[in-house]
Amino acid sequence: VHQPESCTASENLLDESRSGDQSASGPLHSEWITLNVGGKIFTTTQGTLTRFDGDSMLARMFSNDKGVGWSSRVDESGAYLIDRSPLYFEPILNYLRHGKLILDKNVNPEGVLEEAKFFGITSLIETLEEIIDREQQPDDNTPIT
Amino acid sequence: VHQPESCTASENLLDESRSGDQSASGPLHSEWITLNVGGKIFTTTQGTLTRFDGDSMLARMFSNDKGVGWSSRVDESGAYLIDRSPLYFEPILNYLRHGKLILDKNVNPEGVLEEAKFFGITSLIETLEEIIDREQQPDDNTPIT
Amino acid sequence: VHQPESCTASENLLDESRSGDQSASGPLHSEWITLNVGGKIFTTTQGTLTRFDGDSMLARMFSNDKGVGWSSRVDESGAYLIDRSPLYFEPILNYLRHGKLILDKNVNPEGVLEEAKFFGITSLIETLEEIIDREQQPDDNTPIT
Amino acid sequence: VHQPESCTASENLLDESRSGDQSASGPLHSEWITLNVGGKIFTTTQGTLTRFDGDSMLARMFSNDKGVGWSSRVDESGAYLIDRSPLYFEPILNYLRHGKLILDKNVNPEGVLEEAKFFGITSLIETLEEIIDREQQPDDNTPIT
Amino acid sequence: VHQPESCTASENLLDESRSGDQSASGPLHSEWITLNVGGKIFTTTQGTLTRFDGDSMLARMFSNDKGVGWSSRVDESGAYLIDRSPLYFEPILNYLRHGKLILDKNVNPEGVLEEAKFFGITSLIETLEEIIDREQQPDDNTPIT
Repeated sequence: VHQPESCTASENLLDESRSGDQSASGPLHSEWITLNVGGKIFTTTQGTLTRFDGDSMLARMFSNDKGVGWSSRVDESGAYLIDRSPLYFEPILNYLRHGKLILDKNVNPEGVLEEAKFFGITSLIETLEEIIDREQQPDDNTPIT
Repeated sequence: VHQPESCTASENLLDESRSGDQSASGPLHSEWITLNVGGKIFTTTQGTLTRFDGDSMLARMFSNDKGVGWSSRVDESGAYLIDRSPLYFEPILNYLRHGKLILDKNVNPEGVLEEAKFFGITSLIETLEEIIDREQQPDDNTPIT
Repeated sequence: VHQPESCTASENLLDESRSGDQSASGPLHSEWITLNVGGKIFTTTQGTLTRFDGDSMLARMFSNDKGVGWSSRVDESGAYLIDRSPLYFEPILNYLRHGKLILDKNVNPEGVLEEAKFFGITSLIETLEEIIDREQQPDDNTPIT
Repeated sequence: VHQPESCTASENLLDESRSGDQSASGPLHSEWITLNVGGKIFTTTQGTLTRFDGDSMLARMFSNDKGVGWSSRVDESGAYLIDRSPLYFEPILNYLRHGKLILDKNVNPEGVLEEAKFFGITSLIETLEEIIDREQQPDDNTPIT
Repeated sequence: VHQPESCTASENLLDESRSGDQSASGPLHSEWITLNVGGKIFTTTQGTLTRFDGDSMLARMFSNDKGVGWSSRVDESGAYLIDRSPLYFEPILNYLRHGKLILDKNVNPEGVLEEAKFFGITSLIETLEEIIDREQQPDDNTPIT
């Protein structure tokens, strides 16, 4: 709170707004991470992003040996930039939080499938393909016979 | 309003933007609390978060002996960070406001159930499980017979 | 525009960001008011909030003898804090704008009813109860007979 | 970029955040305009707002002889304040962009009709009334006989 | 980080908030671009916007010979202003990311068609027209005979 030099307060403001939560000095897996997915902000933890599928893109992006091979850009608020759909990333992130895939009625599972493929979350791909198969049959008005 | 030193005004701006509403010096239960749930901001009061289920995670997080065993992080605006789905937290928070569980048609109750379990709001878990049971029967096209 | 003292410009910035539109010196009923309902910002006028049901909580909160018995908190941007659901407040506010209750298909009228009761907008309560009655009958699959 | 006096940089920041896009010095009809409709920000151009129905409220508000009889308030970011529903303004603005009325399935056309009436976009009123008539028949379960 | 002169820190703050991600000095096609479509912010990359349909408006707007004939305005945060519907731009941008058109159930494909036409993404126009044809038949209750 002590700020002896007058205008360096503005400098601090700058640092604050930049650092976001990435500067977390907390224990392993409780580091807070902010993602900017297609323009929408998601806040989560390193533990969530690396929980399942150690080979997934997210797990590799945010594992502790971060920096090795990972050269993502952050936006001006410090959020990691990901050029994907925020609509369909939402159920992906929620799955990583508790291990269940939950889709609202108006969400197209084909959109979520594209994200599961992109992020390499293989445990979700098969589940989503089954959901899509099941949904398409009544839509096609294919007689069951 | 008096700000004798020139640039310390910037310092005040910094404090303002940080303090949010957590610095409320108001009476018990009317303290305003800002939550950052998965990237979305929710504003509520301590009274709402501690109303039902004294044993719930939220009640324990925001009870008056806060600080005891509670070491949550806040984001740069002063909002408490919670790594959960904002979509399904919304009806949970609304329930805490008036005691009724209200779901829009496009909200998947299974998502809300996961949050009720996570936050330990036991009074909601049974209600949600019944809703899910009831919804699944017509979807499965299981003949009633 | 004239700002003779250098850093007091920052002071003005602070005032600007705080005052929002509440500082309106405009004529009666055209004062702009910003509400922070559960974390979502709504912008409206005093005329809208006090139009119907002079006894409603909103009418009393924002009538001209404001300050009498009204001790609401404002957030750091100057918006009045209300600890209610933004989802279901939306049709309430829209009703106050033109006197018609309009619900989208995916909005649960029971949520709007809770807000009508909370804000004391008695003219809406009966209408909403009728809508809820009508909707529940086909859902219950109760034979009319 | 040259800013000889130290703290007047803050003054510029103030001007920037205020001016928004209204200060556009571009050619006629390509002036960018930011609207704050009920708390939600919409960005569009003068050409869009004045395209159809020269007598519409929007056309008169944003025509070139702006200032004549137009005394709207702007919020602290420079957006013109309009005390209406953002939900139902969205299809109105989209109509002004390309001349087609497009409604999502969960949008209540009665809400859009209220906005068309308020803004005086007469070319939309009849179309919306026809849509409402058509929709209500199956909802009323009125036998066609 | 070195900021010898006191108040020029504010100047830097200004620059930061303006530059957004457009100042990317990264390799070709990985430049981050922020779009302000009708008031909503979308973040994406140059590679996405120029991937398909080299003749599309987006491809021409953000190709490397940018500046030639392209005189778009940016808002105060540095985002490129586009006067179109954000609702219907969302599936267009998502298509540019992975080449699949994915529509949620409540999205009106006619709205997406208007955007596909505006942006000149010819590969999408025919697909969307087929979807609209298929959807309209059951809605019209036209007997198939």
